[in-house]
Amino acid sequence: MQQPHGTTPDVPEDPVGEGADPGPGRPVRAGIPEHGRVPKYYAVKTELEALVDQLGEGGAVPTERDLAARYGVARETVRQALRELLLQGRLRRRGRGTVVAGPKLEQPLSLVSYTEGVRRQGRVPGRSLIGLDRRPAGQVLGGQLDIAADDPVWHLERVLLADDERVGLESTYVPVARFPALDREFDPDSSFYAYLRERLGVRFATAEEKIETVLATPREALLIGTPPALPMLLLHRLSRDTGGRPVERVRSLYRGDRFSFTTRLSGD
Amino acid sequence: MQQPHGTTPDVPEDPVGEGADPGPGRPVRAGIPEHGRVPKYYAVKTELEALVDQLGEGGAVPTERDLAARYGVARETVRQALRELLLQGRLRRRGRGTVVAGPKLEQPLSLVSYTEGVRRQGRVPGRSLIGLDRRPAGQVLGGQLDIAADDPVWHLERVLLADDERVGLESTYVPVARFPALDREFDPDSSFYAYLRERLGVRFATAEEKIETVLATPREALLIGTPPALPMLLLHRLSRDTGGRPVERVRSLYRGDRFSFTTRLSGD
Repeated sequence: MQQPHGTTPDVPEDPVGEGADPGPGRPVRAGIPEHGRVPKYYAVKTELEALVDQLGEGGAVPTERDLAARYGVARETVRQALRELLLQGRLRRRGRGTVVAGPKLEQPLSLVSYTEGVRRQGRVPGRSLIGLDRRPAGQVLGGQLDIAADDPVWHLERVLLADDERVGLESTYVPVARFPALDREFDPDSSFYAYLRERLGVRFATAEEKIETVLATPREALLIGTPPALPMLLLHRLSRDTGGRPVERVRSLYRGDRFSFTTRLSGD
Repeated sequence: MQQPHGTTPDVPEDPVGEGADPGPGRPVRAGIPEHGRVPKYYAVKTELEALVDQLGEGGAVPTERDLAARYGVARETVRQALRELLLQGRLRRRGRGTVVAGPKLEQPLSLVSYTEGVRRQGRVPGRSLIGLDRRPAGQVLGGQLDIAADDPVWHLERVLLADDERVGLESTYVPVARFPALDREFDPDSSFYAYLRERLGVRFATAEEKIETVLATPREALLIGTPPALPMLLLHRLSRDTGGRPVERVRSLYRGDRFSFTTRLSGD
């Protein structure tokens, strides 16, 4: 067993950062194992994180070549460290360069729509239509929406935008019988919840929601404009109206580097 | 632009699966782009997903060599497809082989502890102590716990187990002044919430929670026994008692391939 300090000659001082308080939200001991070898790229990543903190949001990160020279490592090592920081949303591409990213959006887990959630954070929400089609519900979805497997549903698929940046992809499924004029009445660039509420008087009472992390598929990555294997947050939702009737089944995929979700728990 | 069908000669029929209903929880069109080239590994992955469905939980996946021969692709291509299925929790390693994994655990987002959440799903919860130490709170944590930056906190770090499998890593921070005998009284292999409730009469009333996806650090990957860059679900929690006083700040990291979180939303 070797101590971490001995294994990272390229990174001059205190890569473990034991002197500094990492804060309760950060990994313990900067993520470096007590025993065993620290991967070289990870020591560089730790240095880069300190640099990112110094530069602040929007600050330009030096080129791979400059960073490789600065830390005395191969460019491939720098590239791996940068890649993880990009995947985690600490950095982002701007034009041909790389800059320090802003904090993740904090979207409340609540019955309000994407539109309202983003607006509350002072961002401009938007949506861009991929497609609206009708199809038989099938067994699983029919069961969830309390309709027959042969009954038709609308499938509305849209890219989610925040300040014109593509941040997610949403598929909404609703029974055609309940919303027969959806294809003619609804403006797909507007809020679907506002349409349901204002035009049809539908009020949501409850929703069951499930959150997991998944990798974007190639199609999803293309539509959202992310690297192919970026970890995403996937929300499944089944919403019911005040009468207890299922209204919609939604599958929302959010960029894991740009979004977090918040909730307030209470009661026993 | 090429149509997907033309680009995957190695995968005989209907890799897009447009005939089948993917179900509302699955990606649209099996994740394959309408236009543009389908990566070869991804076409293999789509085939493997169908195989996984056939085999069912615990079923043994053929070797890389056999799969490469079956699909007429390089072993490296098969390896990349298997790697994504492992990261997503569809497959898992068993001994030297690979088998179909069970469904992800569905942990409720609620004020009940990890212990109770896992038990409700019929699994045996467990914890294994990494360390218990005391340290000054520091500015950020002190502010959250409503104590001075110099005031000491306990930092309790434990690996979370489900049926003896390591599934997560949890750091709990509580003020020493409020729980002075924690190091002598509390059995670190037991439920911390049960200790607070039964020994000290603490009752949780509310918690603010934030969920995001992050990559495991090398230290975390080592402690939990996951591949280094496995996407994880990270929960930050600040719990308050019935008097509104902050009790604990928790950072919980869960394997993204083994966990999902559920919640029920209600009211306007």
